[in-house]
Amino acid sequence: MNQPDPIFLPLGFKFSALTAGIKASGKPDLALILAPPGTTAAALFTTNFVQAAPVKAGREALARSRGRIRAVIVNSGNANCATGVAGLRACNSVCQTAAQVLNIHASEVFPSSTGVIGVPLPSKKIKVKLPALISAAAASANHLRSFADAILTTDSRPKLASLALQNGRATITGIAKGSGMIHPQLATMLVYLLTDVSASPMELKTALRKACADTFNAISVDGDTSTNDTVLLLASGESRVALRSVRNQFETTLLEVCRSLAEQIVADGEGVQHVIRLRVEQARTRAEALQVARTIAHSLLVKTAWAGADPNWGRILAAVGRSGINIDPGKVSVLIGSQVVCRNGVACKFDEQHAHQELSNAESRVSVRVGRGKSSLEFLTTDLTSEYVRINAEYST
Amino acid sequence: MNQPDPIFLPLGFKFSALTAGIKASGKPDLALILAPPGTTAAALFTTNFVQAAPVKAGREALARSRGRIRAVIVNSGNANCATGVAGLRACNSVCQTAAQVLNIHASEVFPSSTGVIGVPLPSKKIKVKLPALISAAAASANHLRSFADAILTTDSRPKLASLALQNGRATITGIAKGSGMIHPQLATMLVYLLTDVSASPMELKTALRKACADTFNAISVDGDTSTNDTVLLLASGESRVALRSVRNQFETTLLEVCRSLAEQIVADGEGVQHVIRLRVEQARTRAEALQVARTIAHSLLVKTAWAGADPNWGRILAAVGRSGINIDPGKVSVLIGSQVVCRNGVACKFDEQHAHQELSNAESRVSVRVGRGKSSLEFLTTDLTSEYVRINAEYST
Repeated sequence: MNQPDPIFLPLGFKFSALTAGIKASGKPDLALILAPPGTTAAALFTTNFVQAAPVKAGREALARSRGRIRAVIVNSGNANCATGVAGLRACNSVCQTAAQVLNIHASEVFPSSTGVIGVPLPSKKIKVKLPALISAAAASANHLRSFADAILTTDSRPKLASLALQNGRATITGIAKGSGMIHPQLATMLVYLLTDVSASPMELKTALRKACADTFNAISVDGDTSTNDTVLLLASGESRVALRSVRNQFETTLLEVCRSLAEQIVADGEGVQHVIRLRVEQARTRAEALQVARTIAHSLLVKTAWAGADPNWGRILAAVGRSGINIDPGKVSVLIGSQVVCRNGVACKFDEQHAHQELSNAESRVSVRVGRGKSSLEFLTTDLTSEYVRINAEYST
Repeated sequence: MNQPDPIFLPLGFKFSALTAGIKASGKPDLALILAPPGTTAAALFTTNFVQAAPVKAGREALARSRGRIRAVIVNSGNANCATGVAGLRACNSVCQTAAQVLNIHASEVFPSSTGVIGVPLPSKKIKVKLPALISAAAASANHLRSFADAILTTDSRPKLASLALQNGRATITGIAKGSGMIHPQLATMLVYLLTDVSASPMELKTALRKACADTFNAISVDGDTSTNDTVLLLASGESRVALRSVRNQFETTLLEVCRSLAEQIVADGEGVQHVIRLRVEQARTRAEALQVARTIAHSLLVKTAWAGADPNWGRILAAVGRSGINIDPGKVSVLIGSQVVCRNGVACKFDEQHAHQELSNAESRVSVRVGRGKSSLEFLTTDLTSEYVRINAEYST
């Protein structure tokens, strides 16, 4: 799926980016979103027990400000993770400096970091650039794109999605980077969702949870959960459209924006040649379907078969069998595209060339029916190629 | 670890192997162990819910014969998995034919299969060869080695381990093949442990469980559990040494034989360049240590870093954090060789070149201390190389 065009600018937000010298490459590595007074916020963070300093600081900022955020500061090139007390102090000092320049509370500044784990954050390099970063902020599509560029690490392209609701009276725009953990030491998916509807932090949290469940929580490139994953939703209220007055449409639109970003993240996963749209059907619950989908999506043998466009359903069946769900193999069927390749746990005749063709597409469909209930789920994942191994096996420390 | 030399022949067992035409390569693919009257048996099988016909049949044979086995028939080249009722019928007809020739009960014949999933077992090809297979059986080291060769699929070498106990009055010899799931459609670890001590099936089961816990259950190449995994222990009693009179020595010796076979399996994993001896220390329980070890051992990013001999401990820390154990990152330390590279969740200075050297060895040590208790565990695993992907991504269906 291509990124939707044009990019709408949710009212009230300004963007800025520059090079602070954190990345050795000299590429932009410091980015800012400014939000108007009254902007509400909700966020979801990584479930990893190892959490980077900005994740801890961001969670605390939302608690202390009761869901009010005026500025988001993102650096790439350094994850500020496994940096101990000094790392948290460095993160807080960046937020405090920004707050002073902006004349707001430090708890209204939301920090994010992505990059190398275990290296001290060069906070001085960042702080000295904050006045210039803040004064350059503007509400233009170009400034928004420069933000999207500066948060990237090894992504090959920026990830944007934008939709209008209420006939253009309000908008939602999302900006994302990363995918699982896609580069040596470079961890993290960061997603910023901006809207100009007005909403309470609690309303945002509810909408965000729903949207993430079927998008960012239903994708996988390599199964490694980052220490810095963050999805932040900001609502400026400047469109004067209240979320509660358009709840269904808002939730549908937010879901679509998240879905587009999730698809862009998976398609840009390192070394990815084939994206697989994996459906798990006939599970007892959604959680059960997710468990089966994740076991299949994380199986090295399944992922390498997909790299070869090999319709090797035996590996899929074996993965279903070890997923921890008490399945009856005699009720499990596997489809590649619309062809049944394994029916009720047993091989059946199918057109192998056709199945190979289906899996040779840039995006293909695989479905697994587990014969236990009525719950189903779509999960987006990828193949595992030699290119992924090559990139991640480079000695880089 | 090299395979111990010489190979002892446990008293009472005979071996045989030949080519039945199941493998397209024309290599030996049918193998037999004959055991004397009174031989007792215990087995452990795959925990995968999808189980091959011989796994079901073998479990039933042990139940029906109350742990008495006289013959083991193994075919390679076909897993007889996902073959439905016809597959079970084919397996049983092979056992029945062998029982007729041997004049024993069909429930005293233990079947194993390894190879392609989802292809009907060519039972006629097997049955027609049974008389020749049985009449050629003999108790020689060469016959034992021909058995070890005929059960291989994509293994690069046979796997044998043999130790004496009681100053040579009794022996234990093990024969294994495979490693996780190491080739397109070729699934399975098969292990046959033969001893001439006398023991009840229950005594064997107890000893086998203990020996497997720290060996075959503490290794991983690719995290994919096969549908055919089987570990079988047979005791002929012909040494006239009773297991219960030498229990400690027997258990220690069995453990060593299993450990050697487990190490041979891991070292022969497809595409493996580096074997990692992973220690998890300071866990609350052994199960907790195992959960942490498996999460690290299955992390694509950790495994690819090892392929590059990259001392990237951030990936290990991130894997520990998502292992599901409620760890305090501030208490987690990581060692490469004997060097601490991350202390209490924070980067510490270390000799990177030295750590890179340690990881460049054919076998190297990585330790993780999780700061929760006193339980520890050693887990044997491997790196993930482009060669693994190349082999498993070949379009072969």
